[in-house]
Amino acid sequence: MVKRLHFPKTEGELTKRLRRLAVVPPGSGVVEGIGDDCAIFRPRNSPEDLLFTTDLLLENTHFRRATHGARDVGWKALARGLSDIAAMGGAPRFCLVSLAVAPWCDTRWVDGFFRGLLLLAARAGAVLAGGDLSHGESAVCDVVVAGAVPRGCALRRDGARAGDAIYVSGALGASALGLATGRGKPWRRHLRPEPRLALGRYLRETVRATAAMDLSDGLSLDLARLAEASALGAEIAAPPIWPGATLAQALHGGEDYELLFTAPPRTPVPAAFEGIPLTRIGTMRRARSGSVIMAGNPLAPAGYDHFRQR
Amino acid sequence: MVKRLHFPKTEGELTKRLRRLAVVPPGSGVVEGIGDDCAIFRPRNSPEDLLFTTDLLLENTHFRRATHGARDVGWKALARGLSDIAAMGGAPRFCLVSLAVAPWCDTRWVDGFFRGLLLLAARAGAVLAGGDLSHGESAVCDVVVAGAVPRGCALRRDGARAGDAIYVSGALGASALGLATGRGKPWRRHLRPEPRLALGRYLRETVRATAAMDLSDGLSLDLARLAEASALGAEIAAPPIWPGATLAQALHGGEDYELLFTAPPRTPVPAAFEGIPLTRIGTMRRARSGSVIMAGNPLAPAGYDHFRQR
Repeated sequence: MVKRLHFPKTEGELTKRLRRLAVVPPGSGVVEGIGDDCAIFRPRNSPEDLLFTTDLLLENTHFRRATHGARDVGWKALARGLSDIAAMGGAPRFCLVSLAVAPWCDTRWVDGFFRGLLLLAARAGAVLAGGDLSHGESAVCDVVVAGAVPRGCALRRDGARAGDAIYVSGALGASALGLATGRGKPWRRHLRPEPRLALGRYLRETVRATAAMDLSDGLSLDLARLAEASALGAEIAAPPIWPGATLAQALHGGEDYELLFTAPPRTPVPAAFEGIPLTRIGTMRRARSGSVIMAGNPLAPAGYDHFRQR
Repeated sequence: MVKRLHFPKTEGELTKRLRRLAVVPPGSGVVEGIGDDCAIFRPRNSPEDLLFTTDLLLENTHFRRATHGARDVGWKALARGLSDIAAMGGAPRFCLVSLAVAPWCDTRWVDGFFRGLLLLAARAGAVLAGGDLSHGESAVCDVVVAGAVPRGCALRRDGARAGDAIYVSGALGASALGLATGRGKPWRRHLRPEPRLALGRYLRETVRATAAMDLSDGLSLDLARLAEASALGAEIAAPPIWPGATLAQALHGGEDYELLFTAPPRTPVPAAFEGIPLTRIGTMRRARSGSVIMAGNPLAPAGYDHFRQR
């Protein structure tokens, strides 16, 4: 329905610009501002850093009334933020939910939305601590998730070093395949992604990953972001592909909410964690910052950018 | 444009229901969940409590493209949350901004939005620490503000005691008058409300107010909420009215972002703080919880409720 966005910049360019504008003064408690999966705030004298992430879920952009049930929408609205907390190795603490209901939203829909959200919140240990209720022309929700990590221990995008091995969890392309076919396990994975919270903590505590992020916008774009944050390039082979998905869906599809991470080359990384495969797909290289080479050829970042002209 | 909301509940009823559903387990760090201006989180071992609030600002619900400039929208999107922090006596720390641009939003609009927001953020000492960028059918923003207070010292809605004096800052009805006329100082106050941050801290540190909240939805509704949270009734005279505004605009208009607070009857409260009048308008009484009597008659809570049928 949004045919063309009259906006000359990519999301990445706008983010960079805002990062320059939004100066973080020392002493503010903000350890990491714009640019990673979560902002990091350091409370005074606390042994823990707090992580904060916020994600919009909009009708007709991220979900459709006809195909996405209320419970699925509530689940996914929270799952997106939990996945960011997972990517930094954090434990969820609480969430805030802003919801604007559309004229078509009845009590049952609002009920279902909160049921789906609270089901995942209870599983993840995130308390619903507040929010905002409003009405709008279409349904809008924005969910903030707060998590915690031991002070100074958050996994970040910018920690990869040249020579580090690059890994992904799971098989990619399921969500894009599900969105295309609307059925089966891929469709359920599209509707109810499982944030990799236990894996994220394992990567922080045991693997001691050097960098990590979640795959929300597609491997090609997200890996370029990780490489750029670390001022390196990446060289990969094709990633593991979900059965039935295409290579393009696996590379650019987005919304898989698996974890992408790096570790020193000699770090032992098991083949799976709690049943989720962990696959080495490549190596970080001294190369043009943010460049990604797959099977010898440059891989254009064709993942999902909300501000790219369509 | 939203002619009728097919929703049988009021925002207050939905909030109460969610409050029952969203159980806050002990040890979660969440000291206060749904029901006050901000959620309160207590970081481990920290001398400070953190305050969190989130506010939606939606095109055609909260602002109109034709009449509200981009800078005004950015300013107001942040001002709403800062006002919640002020109401609890907090100092702003950081904010997260989720923005979905509409097809009509050009670079200049996005620029203006962030300029307005960052202008107020700099004044208030709130760091822009992150957010989410997306696109939608209409412009949507949701701003989270985090603030801090000394541990256990946040001003809350539920602390008023029978016999406490009730005060408001400023003169009410300016925003509603501005919205009706579209000009002059009332219109500027509608566009760029000034969060009462210094006043909020003064009420916490010096006056030691027993309860406080900000006037976002109109005195009649907000005072009923404060009284209900404190399990008391309120008896008031007419509040100070902005020159040219009607009594109805002052009572029910909303968006004045002044502070409503209570203090023990013998507490000395000056007639003004930094040029903002502080006016005693009544007394908290043992009466039906949430009831408000003005000049001897019940005052119906006719302020702004997003879920009331219109």
